[in-house]
Amino acid sequence: MAQTPSDFLRLVIGKQVHVKLNSNVDYKGILVCLDGYMNLVLENTEEYVNGQLKNKYGDAFVRGNNVLYISATSTSQT
Amino acid sequence: MAQTPSDFLRLVIGKQVHVKLNSNVDYKGILVCLDGYMNLVLENTEEYVNGQLKNKYGDAFVRGNNVLYISATSTSQT
Amino acid sequence: MAQTPSDFLRLVIGKQVHVKLNSNVDYKGILVCLDGYMNLVLENTEEYVNGQLKNKYGDAFVRGNNVLYISATSTSQT
Amino acid sequence: MAQTPSDFLRLVIGKQVHVKLNSNVDYKGILVCLDGYMNLVLENTEEYVNGQLKNKYGDAFVRGNNVLYISATSTSQT
Amino acid sequence: MAQTPSDFLRLVIGKQVHVKLNSNVDYKGILVCLDGYMNLVLENTEEYVNGQLKNKYGDAFVRGNNVLYISATSTSQT
Amino acid sequence: MAQTPSDFLRLVIGKQVHVKLNSNVDYKGILVCLDGYMNLVLENTEEYVNGQLKNKYGDAFVRGNNVLYISATSTSQT
Amino acid sequence: MAQTPSDFLRLVIGKQVHVKLNSNVDYKGILVCLDGYMNLVLENTEEYVNGQLKNKYGDAFVRGNNVLYISATSTSQT
Repeated sequence: MAQTPSDFLRLVIGKQVHVKLNSNVDYKGILVCLDGYMNLVLENTEEYVNGQLKNKYGDAFVRGNNVLYISATSTSQT
Repeated sequence: MAQTPSDFLRLVIGKQVHVKLNSNVDYKGILVCLDGYMNLVLENTEEYVNGQLKNKYGDAFVRGNNVLYISATSTSQT
Repeated sequence: MAQTPSDFLRLVIGKQVHVKLNSNVDYKGILVCLDGYMNLVLENTEEYVNGQLKNKYGDAFVRGNNVLYISATSTSQT
Repeated sequence: MAQTPSDFLRLVIGKQVHVKLNSNVDYKGILVCLDGYMNLVLENTEEYVNGQLKNKYGDAFVRGNNVLYISATSTSQT
Repeated sequence: MAQTPSDFLRLVIGKQVHVKLNSNVDYKGILVCLDGYMNLVLENTEEYVNGQLKNKYGDAFVRGNNVLYISATSTSQT
Repeated sequence: MAQTPSDFLRLVIGKQVHVKLNSNVDYKGILVCLDGYMNLVLENTEEYVNGQLKNKYGDAFVRGNNVLYISATSTSQT
Repeated sequence: MAQTPSDFLRLVIGKQVHVKLNSNVDYKGILVCLDGYMNLVLENTEEYVNGQLKNKYGDAFVRGNNVLYISATSTSQT
């Protein structure tokens, strides 16, 4: 298990992640890389607004200051 | 009892915590680790929106700047 | 009387305080400790949302950047 | 007249002030002290929400980053 | 004409100014002084909320981080 | 073409610009000067709220932290 | 593939990009340049509000602190 949050994020590079922003927008995709400001680059990005799939992008740069959380494993919606 | 807020947070690592964000989103899970920016990693994470269970994740990284409070002991809902 | 706001806060450690956040959430409890970022730890914490008692916690860590005000003496509601 | 805003604030220490926050909350009371972050301590504090008197406190610590303005002389409501 | 925004603000000290905050609150008054954080002190201050005159103060300290704009000459409402 | 955003802004000094703020307020006028914080001074300033012309000022100081974008050439409304 | 988010952004200079701001405003255009604050200059800029084309500009400076994400390849709307 990760010792620090940064370790955790490094462990999920290359994996499918679910990124929730603090404006009801979610992104799902492969985490390519990130930096100290929590800026992220995702591959095969899907954009969900209020839970609805809105857009599909190839690569997308997501700015860190809007990130609410990042989960690594597949989620089980209730 | 903790002398400083940081002591308090270190004391609850490994425990079940309830994290409230400033956007009506709550997370419950085991606190794995945290850093100086209040970034958290939770295990067995449950996401509540307006009090309703919405998602279950394995591990989740929660960004610190949205954290409103973190309570350590089980809460008694009124 | 306190010479600086920090003095004031040190004077109320161990006392019953009323903490109002800038999101219509109030906390009442014993102020255990605080740091330079206005992060607080409360004991016997009660959470009020729009004036209604919602939750009771044991110890709670409240993040400083949402704090609107902290009052030390018992308030007389009008 | 004050040469700088800080001078002005020092001149009103000990006076009755009206503090407006950027969330429709106003405080009236005697300004006891303040610091460089505009954190304030008021005595005989009255809290107004949308212009209605809601609470009376003894001493209250008001966090600076929500302060919109501070007026020193008695106001004439229109 | 001013070479820098700071020059402009120094040129309007002592003049009637119209200060718009980013919360539908406007202030009109004589600009007494200001500092590097855009904190202002106004004399003969009038407070307008949604364009309606709400309050008249003598001297008022207006915190810089809410300032949207400051205009120096009389405005012609359309 | 500008190599950096700052170059771009220097190139439009003295030109008619359209400044959109992140609160549905737009300004049109001649860009007189700006600084590193994106604070701007405009001449012959027109203020639009939700697209409607509301005010005309002579010179106006617009605080940088609310600026969303600045466009230099005349826009073609659709 | 980019090693860091900054690499990614450099790779898309000169390409058609879709920039989403955190206020339901989207810009599409050729990315001319950007700086460390994520300030961008776009060419042949189109402004969309709630998905509707509102304005066409030549060159536009977009301030970085409102940027939510930047996608490089053409998007397939669902």
